[in-house]
Amino acid sequence: MPRRGEERWLLPAGIEEILPDQARIIEGLRRELLDLYASWGYELVIPPFIDYLESLLTGTGQDLDLQTFKLIDQLSGRLLGVRADMTPQVARLDAHQLRRDVPTRLCYLGTVLHTRADGPAGTRSPLQLGAEIYGHAGIESEVEILRLLLLTLRTAGIPEIYLDLGHVGIYRGLARQAGLDVDQEHALFDALQRKAIPEIESLVGEFGLKGLVAGMLVGLAELNGSDALERAAALLADADPQVKQALEELHRLAEELNHWLPEVAIHYDLAELRGYRYKTGVVFAAFVPGWGLEVARGGRYDDIGRVFGQARPAVGFSTDLKGLIQHGQGLAERYRPLDAVLVPWSSDPNLQQVIESLRAQGRRVIQALPGTPSDPRALGCSESLIYEDGRWVSRQVIEDMPHIL
Amino acid sequence: MPRRGEERWLLPAGIEEILPDQARIIEGLRRELLDLYASWGYELVIPPFIDYLESLLTGTGQDLDLQTFKLIDQLSGRLLGVRADMTPQVARLDAHQLRRDVPTRLCYLGTVLHTRADGPAGTRSPLQLGAEIYGHAGIESEVEILRLLLLTLRTAGIPEIYLDLGHVGIYRGLARQAGLDVDQEHALFDALQRKAIPEIESLVGEFGLKGLVAGMLVGLAELNGSDALERAAALLADADPQVKQALEELHRLAEELNHWLPEVAIHYDLAELRGYRYKTGVVFAAFVPGWGLEVARGGRYDDIGRVFGQARPAVGFSTDLKGLIQHGQGLAERYRPLDAVLVPWSSDPNLQQVIESLRAQGRRVIQALPGTPSDPRALGCSESLIYEDGRWVSRQVIEDMPHIL
Repeated sequence: MPRRGEERWLLPAGIEEILPDQARIIEGLRRELLDLYASWGYELVIPPFIDYLESLLTGTGQDLDLQTFKLIDQLSGRLLGVRADMTPQVARLDAHQLRRDVPTRLCYLGTVLHTRADGPAGTRSPLQLGAEIYGHAGIESEVEILRLLLLTLRTAGIPEIYLDLGHVGIYRGLARQAGLDVDQEHALFDALQRKAIPEIESLVGEFGLKGLVAGMLVGLAELNGSDALERAAALLADADPQVKQALEELHRLAEELNHWLPEVAIHYDLAELRGYRYKTGVVFAAFVPGWGLEVARGGRYDDIGRVFGQARPAVGFSTDLKGLIQHGQGLAERYRPLDAVLVPWSSDPNLQQVIESLRAQGRRVIQALPGTPSDPRALGCSESLIYEDGRWVSRQVIEDMPHIL
Repeated sequence: MPRRGEERWLLPAGIEEILPDQARIIEGLRRELLDLYASWGYELVIPPFIDYLESLLTGTGQDLDLQTFKLIDQLSGRLLGVRADMTPQVARLDAHQLRRDVPTRLCYLGTVLHTRADGPAGTRSPLQLGAEIYGHAGIESEVEILRLLLLTLRTAGIPEIYLDLGHVGIYRGLARQAGLDVDQEHALFDALQRKAIPEIESLVGEFGLKGLVAGMLVGLAELNGSDALERAAALLADADPQVKQALEELHRLAEELNHWLPEVAIHYDLAELRGYRYKTGVVFAAFVPGWGLEVARGGRYDDIGRVFGQARPAVGFSTDLKGLIQHGQGLAERYRPLDAVLVPWSSDPNLQQVIESLRAQGRRVIQALPGTPSDPRALGCSESLIYEDGRWVSRQVIEDMPHIL
């Protein structure tokens, strides 16, 4: 524990302050990605940073209760939450504010806070970036969202990724076929997430399941890898129509992705069910080779708007912009600072004209402040303006060659 | 009180969600202003959204205790605050992280939260935007900050503003000259802020002050208006050197502003002391005619970095970007949506090439999703692509004239 006087500069664990070199990269990539989304027809929305807790914890938010910082609203006496995920807020915007009857494409970017970090060295304040399509239930909106996700990662300088695909309808259908109650469904779900096969076998026995359906539930845990769809077709040949329809959707999506994104390695995992409680169809996550945590995730969640007055089909992805920057290559070179020119403090109108014209050309012009160090290099300037023979000339700091402006 | 099922879309008072038309303006103006600051040599920094409460409430933050939402950190058990003002965080960044010995120009932009709104219809989540110069104590940095503030307001489409100028050194010096203790200084300060002259006279009598210093303190309340500096010179002719030095600084600043910003109406108010507890020199606020609340404020606060390890002179301004947009003219026209083109869902590689080229030209291209309405106008498109005679042609929605691409 530091002494009292020294601790004022300490930051809470998992909370970062971002210095100029990093902030420039974040701002540059932010703009490039939002421009990309705009060119695909995605409109930017800005949900509020705090909200009534019950609004935040609907739909996708139910899993986030523990992750949400709570506040008391002094005005209403009610409980507020700091958003831990912007997805439910954006769904509310679509359902309650926009209320359109055509497909709506929205994107968003903003800080979210988590009470606990995902990993040991993880952040508690991701810069969440996402895109969503509301109002279309088919495979085409899934393809578009996945193409946009891949383009996002490529724009962020992440050259190689693999995609993990699943579908919550498979386990949901098998659980129904087996006649599991809610508690049984959740218990088995937990074991599946951990791929704990002996535990799954023991649960299946405990629930009195036998034969075909028992075999399918146990086998589900091993349905992962690039050939998982072929193996699933055999294992689930006699499953209920809901299961087969989910499998069929995944097949068709795989074919489309093969056409649109032939360069992306796809890995299937039919037992990995991110966001099972609110997702309704395909689920996916993107990974960087050699890095255990996903860099982006998403899926279909068709019921999310219902509590806000309009249930619209929805599919989308989200990622952490700060996380992307950790994995992105060449970003520091791409978002370099503007070339800087040092000029003396002077009210000479000719100098002011030169300064304005340099700034309009995209140069950074720094006015020297009297009484402070005047070495251009100390101020990050590669060039300085001096008055010589009746005019302002530029002097390169390194080469020291004057240029008449 | 709405019924339970209906209230999920309600927002807390003073908390806004921002729809596409407004978000586009915010994003457009945000970029233009950050680019402006970059061209003047200001580096962007991003302070954290939450911080240990004691870090937030140092320096400029002391007045903000009541305005700050508090949270418990589950990891450390300590009290956190949601930033209500980014200025102390940026000062910490300069003093503790950057630690430069040359002048440092920083800018920042981000949401801050207030437990209570400033006015009855005010926001509790301003989008705070500001710029600061650290490491220079002279009048030149004040001039630069005020020029940048004025340019900010002009960029935001606010054509006419007036500037309210004061200097905390005048009252601080008079209070010292009068030998007031801390409580007396604060009591008189409160009355001065309200320009409650009978109360000021009664307090001055209560404190046993007579003659010259009593007259100066009472007269201070009336030192406002465009001729206040001339009247101050007469009233404060026999004040202590500290008071006269503050007045002299204000005089010199007024001359400089007259040179640099001749078009701006300047109003003096030597008793209006915004942020008196932490400001150390000139204080200012910008007003839009016909609107009672200030749109931007700032001043000199030379001691702010001390608690973070390095006391550097500092001067800066801050404003609320969402507030600027309320007063700015012509912003909706300036930040119009990109022209949108509707294209059918198709995997034809020729169409994909056309789409990519349109997007690269800055067009918004929306892919129709099968099974949804295909009227381009319903999707906000002024143009659509159709396949005709073996090639993709563009058809204007209104004129209905095909153009070969």
